[in-house]
Amino acid sequence: MGDPVPHIALGNDEDGIVSLFAYRPETARPLSELAETLLRGPSSLSRGERELIASYVSKLNDCEFCTSSHAAFAAAQLPEGMPLVDQVRADLDAAPVPPKLKALLRVAGAVQRGGRHVRAEDVEAARAAGATDVEIHDTVLIAAAFCMYNRYVDGLGTTVPDDPSGYAAAAEVITRAGYLAVLEGGRPDGAPEPAAAD
Amino acid sequence: MGDPVPHIALGNDEDGIVSLFAYRPETARPLSELAETLLRGPSSLSRGERELIASYVSKLNDCEFCTSSHAAFAAAQLPEGMPLVDQVRADLDAAPVPPKLKALLRVAGAVQRGGRHVRAEDVEAARAAGATDVEIHDTVLIAAAFCMYNRYVDGLGTTVPDDPSGYAAAAEVITRAGYLAVLEGGRPDGAPEPAAAD
Repeated sequence: MGDPVPHIALGNDEDGIVSLFAYRPETARPLSELAETLLRGPSSLSRGERELIASYVSKLNDCEFCTSSHAAFAAAQLPEGMPLVDQVRADLDAAPVPPKLKALLRVAGAVQRGGRHVRAEDVEAARAAGATDVEIHDTVLIAAAFCMYNRYVDGLGTTVPDDPSGYAAAAEVITRAGYLAVLEGGRPDGAPEPAAAD
Repeated sequence: MGDPVPHIALGNDEDGIVSLFAYRPETARPLSELAETLLRGPSSLSRGERELIASYVSKLNDCEFCTSSHAAFAAAQLPEGMPLVDQVRADLDAAPVPPKLKALLRVAGAVQRGGRHVRAEDVEAARAAGATDVEIHDTVLIAAAFCMYNRYVDGLGTTVPDDPSGYAAAAEVITRAGYLAVLEGGRPDGAPEPAAAD
């Protein structure tokens, strides 16, 4: 294939963060536990709403693997499905999302630019639209976490799937079994877990 | 005090990320385990070198709490102490750090700007200076992780210590007992762990 290759020899044929998790299991564990807690743990924000925030921030960071992955995970868990995800990515202001979620997405966008870009009025607008402090906290941390995951995935030059249907297949695993399942061999394509390189 | 207040009611008087860990223990655990693995786990990069990367990226992100904290943790674990940390923060090109570490700091600086800013030649320069693939991986992930921690700390408007000696006190805890000790009541100032807010 003429595709770009990762910056380091990962020793496996997985794409995106999955290839990094196979390469370095020591860090894969806390990174996956963070994703599981933030995106699937108990929260008054739905799992679909949280995945939408993750995909939106990944788009702002121009990270194709994470944008497409979390768009699929959001679409699988939002009643409005992929059309809403696409509208949010294309034009947040015009997208038909409820005011609270729109205000939280704006907070997430500020976090993406930098921590000091979050203004008191951004937070106040979210609160005025009905967001709780915990929801504001979790939105900030989800946005911050994707500024990490996105940089990790692209900073090491990982690959994206040749076949975009891989994202929907991954969504099936994530929505059924969660983020830790990927570590435990519940690979989206059913392949056996590769050995970790060293 | 006339200090700025956090954007949400954290329910404790801690500063920086410590206040966020007390507020949301669910996410504090994987965030602390990630820091422990990245900055103190087995690695051919010394703990001091890894803390220097963390402080350097935090400075680029203009995060006072994390810059000062990890500068203290680096100084406590580098033979050259705080003078070297200060030189790296002031002017990386001129700082007297070995070529491999300087090349890794440049990779970290690229990650701070964004994952796609890391060029193959940045990675090749690190490799030519003696860096292994695992060292390059860990440098990218440390830099990416601090793009998260920095945004988390500043995106919620947390406070910084009134007394900068708190950073050196924290360094004593971290270098002796590690990042998980902060969760378990090994607070830098010896105060009892505050109750988590909800």
